[in-house]
Amino acid sequence: MSRGHATPRRSDEEPLYDLDVATPSHAEQARTLIEQEQTASLGTLAPGLDTAKDDEPASHPYVSFVTFALETSDPILLVSEMAEHTQNLRLDPRASLLAAERRAADPLANGRVTLLGSCRPTDDESARAAYLERLPNAAYYCDFKDFNFWRLRVESIRFIGGYGRMSWVDAAAWRAATPDPLAPHRERIVEHMNDDHVDAMALLCRTFSKAHDAEQVTMTAVDRYGFEMSVVTERGPRPVRLAFPEAVTTPDAARQALVALVADARAR
Amino acid sequence: MSRGHATPRRSDEEPLYDLDVATPSHAEQARTLIEQEQTASLGTLAPGLDTAKDDEPASHPYVSFVTFALETSDPILLVSEMAEHTQNLRLDPRASLLAAERRAADPLANGRVTLLGSCRPTDDESARAAYLERLPNAAYYCDFKDFNFWRLRVESIRFIGGYGRMSWVDAAAWRAATPDPLAPHRERIVEHMNDDHVDAMALLCRTFSKAHDAEQVTMTAVDRYGFEMSVVTERGPRPVRLAFPEAVTTPDAARQALVALVADARAR
Repeated sequence: MSRGHATPRRSDEEPLYDLDVATPSHAEQARTLIEQEQTASLGTLAPGLDTAKDDEPASHPYVSFVTFALETSDPILLVSEMAEHTQNLRLDPRASLLAAERRAADPLANGRVTLLGSCRPTDDESARAAYLERLPNAAYYCDFKDFNFWRLRVESIRFIGGYGRMSWVDAAAWRAATPDPLAPHRERIVEHMNDDHVDAMALLCRTFSKAHDAEQVTMTAVDRYGFEMSVVTERGPRPVRLAFPEAVTTPDAARQALVALVADARAR
Repeated sequence: MSRGHATPRRSDEEPLYDLDVATPSHAEQARTLIEQEQTASLGTLAPGLDTAKDDEPASHPYVSFVTFALETSDPILLVSEMAEHTQNLRLDPRASLLAAERRAADPLANGRVTLLGSCRPTDDESARAAYLERLPNAAYYCDFKDFNFWRLRVESIRFIGGYGRMSWVDAAAWRAATPDPLAPHRERIVEHMNDDHVDAMALLCRTFSKAHDAEQVTMTAVDRYGFEMSVVTERGPRPVRLAFPEAVTTPDAARQALVALVADARAR
C-alpha cells in the first residue's frame, strides 16, 4: 500500500549536509509522536446513514473523538457502550486511530500517525493500568458498568512527518520502536540553544556541513541521534542536520555531546 | 440513529435555572464550532490492509488529517491525488469529517462535530473561493495539477457538546443554522465579565435564578441568546444560564443587554 509521495522534492537544491546522517526512522518518529498525545480521532464503520435509502450500502466511515493511552504499541480506549463508535465496533471491529501533533503554525507541516487494525474489548489488567496511568481522571468513571476498555491491535501504520515525508511503516518495526527519550525535553533544549549558543551552532555548521559561511543559525529540532538547524543562506533558509557522536538518552548526555562536537570543531 | 446519552444525568440535583431558557440549538452549536476550526480528521474507506489475507473484507476505515473550509454548510477540501484519502475517495465517495474544539483542559468536555456524507471533486468557483479565503497560504499550491478541490456533501450530522450533551442533528436544521456572531468575541467578553463584573453577575443570579445566595459567580460562556455562569454553592459549583432580553449579534449589543438586565435586577 505504498503509493509514493504527495509533494515533489525540490531537486534543484543540493543538500548542505550528508543525507545519510543518523536520523530517527519513521517507526521511531511515529512512536515518539503518539507517545506525546492522549487524544485522537477514531475511525469506525457505521451501519449506514439514517437518511439511507434502500440502495444505500452499509458501512459508512465514522470518525469520533477519543482519549487513548498506548500499552506497548497498541492504543487502549475507554468507551461507553452507548457511544456511536462503540456500537459500530460491536458490529465490526475494523478501526483506525489518527493522532496528530500541533507544534508548527502551519497545520500541514505537523506530523501525524494513523494506526489501522481491529479494536476489541479487553479485560487485561495491563491495559487498564496503562490507561489509568496516562489518564488518571478516568478512574472516576472507568468502573461504570457501561464503560469498557478496548484495545486496537495495530496491523498497519501510516506515518506523515509533514510535507513530503511519509511512508507505510512496517508493523514489526512499529512494535520494536521506542519513543525518543529527548522528546519531553526538546522544546527546552531548542530554546536554550537558540538563546545562548548560536555562535557554537554556526561553528558546527561551518565545520561539519557545506554551509561554510553559516552565521545565522537556529536549532529547529533535537532527538536522540542528532539535531536540526535552519541556516540563513543567500538562497533563503536551508536545513542542516548533524549527528551526535553516539545516540543519547538524557538532556545531560545531549549537552555533553554538543560540547564535545564544538571542542572537535575548534580543534580543527 | 439517535441512541440516547453516553453519560447519565445527575437527576438528584434540581436545576437552579429555567431549563427552557433560550439556548443555541445543537445545529447552531455544531455550526459555530466548525466555523472556528480549519483542521479536521477525514474518515474514508481504504481498500483493505496490506497485511490482508484472502478472507479480509474490503473497506477498512482510514482516518487522516486535513485542512478544510466551509462553503455554506459543506466542507471543502484541497487534496493531492497522491494522498491515501484521495485514492480512497476515488474508489468510494463515502466520508466523514470530525472537527473538535480545544477549549477546556478536560478533552472530553470539549465539543465536536462529525459530518457524514459523500465527498466528490468540485470545479465550483465558489468552493475554491471559500477555501482560499479561509486558507490563503494554499494559493501557493492549489494550482498544482495533482491538487483538486473536493466537497463533502453533508447528509448526516452528529454533535457532541461535551459530557452527556449529544444528538443527531437534522440535516435541514444544519443547513439553516448560522454560526454564533459572538463566538469570535466570547473569550474576551467572558474574561472582561470575570475581571470587572462579578458583583453584577451575582446580583443577576440572586434575582433571576434559584441561586438566591449567590456571591461567587464566574461566567463560563456567552452566545447570541444568553450567558452561562458557574455559581459556588454549599453543594459545589452549579450552572446557571440566563437569556438576553432578545438575541444579540455584536459584543456591544451583548454589553447593552447585560446593562439592561442589571438595571432591571436593581429596580426590583
